[in-house]
Amino acid sequence: MLLKQNLSLYRILKITWQIDLAMLASCTAAYYLDTLVFKGWALPGTFPALMGTAIAFFIGFSNNEAYSRWWEARIIWGALVNDSRSWARNLMAYSHPADYKGISRQEEKMIKRHLAFLYALKASLRRKPDGLYEKYLCEEDRNHVKGFTNIPNAILDIQARELQILQDMNYIDGFKFMMMNNLLQNFTDGMGKSERINNTVFPTTYVYFTKLFIWLVVVLVTMAVSSLGPSSIFLGWVIGFVFHTTHINGMSLMNPFELTPSSIPLDSITRTIEINLLEGLGEKYIPAPIAPERGGEFIL
Amino acid sequence: MLLKQNLSLYRILKITWQIDLAMLASCTAAYYLDTLVFKGWALPGTFPALMGTAIAFFIGFSNNEAYSRWWEARIIWGALVNDSRSWARNLMAYSHPADYKGISRQEEKMIKRHLAFLYALKASLRRKPDGLYEKYLCEEDRNHVKGFTNIPNAILDIQARELQILQDMNYIDGFKFMMMNNLLQNFTDGMGKSERINNTVFPTTYVYFTKLFIWLVVVLVTMAVSSLGPSSIFLGWVIGFVFHTTHINGMSLMNPFELTPSSIPLDSITRTIEINLLEGLGEKYIPAPIAPERGGEFIL
Amino acid sequence: MLLKQNLSLYRILKITWQIDLAMLASCTAAYYLDTLVFKGWALPGTFPALMGTAIAFFIGFSNNEAYSRWWEARIIWGALVNDSRSWARNLMAYSHPADYKGISRQEEKMIKRHLAFLYALKASLRRKPDGLYEKYLCEEDRNHVKGFTNIPNAILDIQARELQILQDMNYIDGFKFMMMNNLLQNFTDGMGKSERINNTVFPTTYVYFTKLFIWLVVVLVTMAVSSLGPSSIFLGWVIGFVFHTTHINGMSLMNPFELTPSSIPLDSITRTIEINLLEGLGEKYIPAPIAPERGGEFIL
Amino acid sequence: MLLKQNLSLYRILKITWQIDLAMLASCTAAYYLDTLVFKGWALPGTFPALMGTAIAFFIGFSNNEAYSRWWEARIIWGALVNDSRSWARNLMAYSHPADYKGISRQEEKMIKRHLAFLYALKASLRRKPDGLYEKYLCEEDRNHVKGFTNIPNAILDIQARELQILQDMNYIDGFKFMMMNNLLQNFTDGMGKSERINNTVFPTTYVYFTKLFIWLVVVLVTMAVSSLGPSSIFLGWVIGFVFHTTHINGMSLMNPFELTPSSIPLDSITRTIEINLLEGLGEKYIPAPIAPERGGEFIL
Amino acid sequence: MLLKQNLSLYRILKITWQIDLAMLASCTAAYYLDTLVFKGWALPGTFPALMGTAIAFFIGFSNNEAYSRWWEARIIWGALVNDSRSWARNLMAYSHPADYKGISRQEEKMIKRHLAFLYALKASLRRKPDGLYEKYLCEEDRNHVKGFTNIPNAILDIQARELQILQDMNYIDGFKFMMMNNLLQNFTDGMGKSERINNTVFPTTYVYFTKLFIWLVVVLVTMAVSSLGPSSIFLGWVIGFVFHTTHINGMSLMNPFELTPSSIPLDSITRTIEINLLEGLGEKYIPAPIAPERGGEFIL
Repeated sequence: MLLKQNLSLYRILKITWQIDLAMLASCTAAYYLDTLVFKGWALPGTFPALMGTAIAFFIGFSNNEAYSRWWEARIIWGALVNDSRSWARNLMAYSHPADYKGISRQEEKMIKRHLAFLYALKASLRRKPDGLYEKYLCEEDRNHVKGFTNIPNAILDIQARELQILQDMNYIDGFKFMMMNNLLQNFTDGMGKSERINNTVFPTTYVYFTKLFIWLVVVLVTMAVSSLGPSSIFLGWVIGFVFHTTHINGMSLMNPFELTPSSIPLDSITRTIEINLLEGLGEKYIPAPIAPERGGEFIL
Repeated sequence: MLLKQNLSLYRILKITWQIDLAMLASCTAAYYLDTLVFKGWALPGTFPALMGTAIAFFIGFSNNEAYSRWWEARIIWGALVNDSRSWARNLMAYSHPADYKGISRQEEKMIKRHLAFLYALKASLRRKPDGLYEKYLCEEDRNHVKGFTNIPNAILDIQARELQILQDMNYIDGFKFMMMNNLLQNFTDGMGKSERINNTVFPTTYVYFTKLFIWLVVVLVTMAVSSLGPSSIFLGWVIGFVFHTTHINGMSLMNPFELTPSSIPLDSITRTIEINLLEGLGEKYIPAPIAPERGGEFIL
Repeated sequence: MLLKQNLSLYRILKITWQIDLAMLASCTAAYYLDTLVFKGWALPGTFPALMGTAIAFFIGFSNNEAYSRWWEARIIWGALVNDSRSWARNLMAYSHPADYKGISRQEEKMIKRHLAFLYALKASLRRKPDGLYEKYLCEEDRNHVKGFTNIPNAILDIQARELQILQDMNYIDGFKFMMMNNLLQNFTDGMGKSERINNTVFPTTYVYFTKLFIWLVVVLVTMAVSSLGPSSIFLGWVIGFVFHTTHINGMSLMNPFELTPSSIPLDSITRTIEINLLEGLGEKYIPAPIAPERGGEFIL
Repeated sequence: MLLKQNLSLYRILKITWQIDLAMLASCTAAYYLDTLVFKGWALPGTFPALMGTAIAFFIGFSNNEAYSRWWEARIIWGALVNDSRSWARNLMAYSHPADYKGISRQEEKMIKRHLAFLYALKASLRRKPDGLYEKYLCEEDRNHVKGFTNIPNAILDIQARELQILQDMNYIDGFKFMMMNNLLQNFTDGMGKSERINNTVFPTTYVYFTKLFIWLVVVLVTMAVSSLGPSSIFLGWVIGFVFHTTHINGMSLMNPFELTPSSIPLDSITRTIEINLLEGLGEKYIPAPIAPERGGEFIL
Repeated sequence: MLLKQNLSLYRILKITWQIDLAMLASCTAAYYLDTLVFKGWALPGTFPALMGTAIAFFIGFSNNEAYSRWWEARIIWGALVNDSRSWARNLMAYSHPADYKGISRQEEKMIKRHLAFLYALKASLRRKPDGLYEKYLCEEDRNHVKGFTNIPNAILDIQARELQILQDMNYIDGFKFMMMNNLLQNFTDGMGKSERINNTVFPTTYVYFTKLFIWLVVVLVTMAVSSLGPSSIFLGWVIGFVFHTTHINGMSLMNPFELTPSSIPLDSITRTIEINLLEGLGEKYIPAPIAPERGGEFIL
């Protein structure tokens, strides 16, 4: 997630320099084509204006959908935060005999296993297996889940089996069993929804043609203002800069679980849950919140 | 679902060649009509500009709704993934006596029958009966469902009857019965929602008139720039290319369960569930994930 | 629901002929007013262009809301389909003693009474009382519901009373009672939501002023291009055709329960449920699906 | 809620006459300023066109949000209709011993008290305390609720206490208690959501600046077409009429619980529930539906 | 939340004076650059018109998302109001033995602790720790929660533990336990959703580039109308005023929990709940509603 309100010129150029050069080249070509080859041919300004207006719509549409994916991803992980807190609360407050004081071993195990679920899900979404989740699993669980394609799902299966044990031992009644199983179902849903966003490619034809159309407008604008002389190259680039930058901004939100500065800060969210849950368990060592990168420019 | 970010020229032409030819013909006709027949008649550029802006709105509207149908379809099948996992988890973890170890025959049967439900639903949505679902049904079930118009619904009816048996045998209590019946109800909803999208034709007047209006703009633009000479034919085609391509892109998402490259990849999603569930059952033979088609261009 | 992708010229003219004639008359008047009365008065093209752009927005807004009403109506009836199947499934699978085989008289009665609910709701939404619902009610029920303003609601009241009897006879426990009562509540919600759309008039000022503004644009466009001679009458009509047709298309979706070709196909949806439920009951006579009207042009 | 599709000239003038006069005055001033003071100054048409397009967007935005508030308000009260029917149904069908026939005194009291809740909520939303709710309360309740700031909330508190009594007397079990308490919670939510819309002022800066911008456009348009002579005053007014009217239409939906012709018809909706519930109770005197006002122009 | 419909000139200048001055400077520079340096260079009006239209879209997009964040924040706190009332109602009506009259000490404590939760959450969202929440906690609780990073979450943990005590003492059964725990879960969700909005920075590239693009348009417009003389400086400023003001309006809603005049009025909402709950408890001292600030201009 980007944090800084003002971008440095460095970052703007970093985002756009390739496309800037390509545009300047195209506009120069368009300008000389128009003035040297198509002499006497004067494209009226309303023509690229019509195209530009239409394309602004289509960019707006893509950006809208990209933002929706990003925000939905954030909502999904926000819900995982909330349900993680409820999961820990339910375990700590409701899942032992009335005369038991404090937190039982079993409760601690199920809370920490939930942290393992979150770490495994994060690694899977970012397609970077890191084994960080193993820290919160006992050895038996660690060995068990390795045989599965979908590790976070396998962890939830263990949670379900142990929830049944809680009921078999009469620590929780049917109502509490149902409430906690609902939370497991919510975790399944949060996992599946994240996978849906991560695995569904935004219709590539939109992205491709929008880019193509922007190039068309850039060239046509340059030609339409070519009577102004070489400054028309600059004007073509200005229009292209506005359109391409906006399109690039949108695209940077399209895959919100990738490991980029504008993505959802999974590290930071997971750490927040970790801190809340470990504090609740009364652990001595509580990890620090994730710090922003590159002097506060973004957080991962 | 399309996978490749860059379309080959071949694919662009494949999508648009018919309409490209038709447009070039119309623009040529419009050009000669304007210059030879309507001599001295000079359509001002603001006229097609106004029409074009209005039509860009209407294309945007159709595309928006088309994308919504596509994304809703994806969400519905995402929810089927999640609930399938919960269904298998509930059966494996909660639905046998406390002293029973492993997975009972009955549980395995109900999990595999669920795979039959998904295969039957997929075939029905694509209107291509393929009998693949039969693999996961016992012979009795196979014969039973054949008498029904709606096979997936008939499979759910069997699941409900067997759920009742689980309760009659005291393997599940009222809470678990309710949780699992809720999942059956979710499957019913997912099935019905898919049918709704599949069977509801997007208002045909929108699609028809939008196409008609684009043709109007193409012809009028050509006439408005006819003073530029034959290159106005090319300019008319450029505008038409932008508008028609965008409209075609939208339309390709309108019926997301059809068997086309841009549709929801039902094969791939069903296979993902299949792998998760069979792994959970500890099956030896696990099918491979569905591979992309035509060198990674799309996945079905 | 319209089915045909291509409209015949006949249908287009049928939709628009009145407005076409009125527009041609207005444009002719505007043209002669401009050229004969306001000689030397040359309205610049940007003026109607600005108005046209603004009005395209407002048409887009109305169309958006109209489509939302139509699609929400479809979703409501889709949910009625799903819950009807769940209702029948719950009755057939769960609502008799464990040793009872087959479907009891009481279950059949409650399933058929649900079909009566759907037929009564359909007739009430279309404001065409047809008595078709009576077929699925016993005489006692038929007489009872006649005293009520809202017949479908009265049918649901009977269902609730008989649900209580199922529990009094210990055929269903509290969990099943709750699940089935939730379905009754869903039917109440589906009924109420349909009534909400049906009884809420879309703000009439929007519709009225949008129409008025389109007429303004048509006249102003004609005047702005009057220097082209009588063909400006044609151009005025073209703009008007685009705007009015789009507006009419939107309006045709505004009241989705009316008995028009573009409305939600309540006959067809109700029949689908009827077929599913009667097949489930093992009835011998199953009615055929509703056939499209006028050679496949639409379905009711 | 407005009912008439066609507005009389009287109503249009009633909505707009003040602003029409103010616009004519401004346009006249702008015209003479432009032609007498700023002689030789010719504002190009693209300038107000750009501003007009931008402002059309912003008007569209405000209208969208205003309509959303109006439609959400309608949905909230639609849900109150549905839950009111479920509340009455649950009380009448489930809340007395199995051998009791008919409707008990207690049930009748709780159904009528619900009507009091609706009348009290309606009066509170319209900020017009009318005491109509007292008709459906016994004297004890009437005196009790008077001490509270929020009368509808106090009525719900009584309902909750009496629901507990139903359970204490073993008329309803835990399941039914939960179902009915859920309805009470829905009423709490409907009340709170209505209050949210009623008490949240739409960001005033939007409304204020949009109005200001429209005046700017009106003046600038007049100046841009001033070369046409005094008719430019009329053209400025036309643009202003389109923009202001659309903005006023939107604003009229912004506060949907106010007592205006375009508001949500709370009287009519409450009466519909009243009729349904009293018919269900078998009351002899059933009030008539609310009739439209001013010859069918609107309903309150 | 802003209350006044009409802004004073003072407030407008306060919002915009910095940007107004900067714009006047830029426009002046642009004007003299265009007329003195780039003599003979005449930028056609369609060029900034195209850019302006595109940027109006992008401003519209940002404003839309900003408003959505603001309105979602309001909805979240509206839901907290509703669930707070349900929480108090459930405690007062259902959570003591049937023969107990009035409100028990335990109930009072749990209702007041909920007010502490709201005050702690409010302070945390505004990042202004104020200790106001301590008033509603007993000393033991006060000391307990101080050790936690997230105080409102720690308060909910205490509520959960005491809810378990209510059940251990047989004051509430499993159904009531579940209903009340659902409310605790809703509070957890409301807290987490508020944190999500508060901690998620709107993609900074959008805000930054939109501002940059507006400056571009301002300069280009000034140049395009420079032939009108120094008044083009004024016209550039007018366009900039419209665009910047609209953008600033949107941005002021982006972070709805900040302590600014346009934010969600958390003080006022919390006080409303406080009044409702204390009245319900029969407290003698009821605090007054929060009064608007600066002569009714806004409420916090």
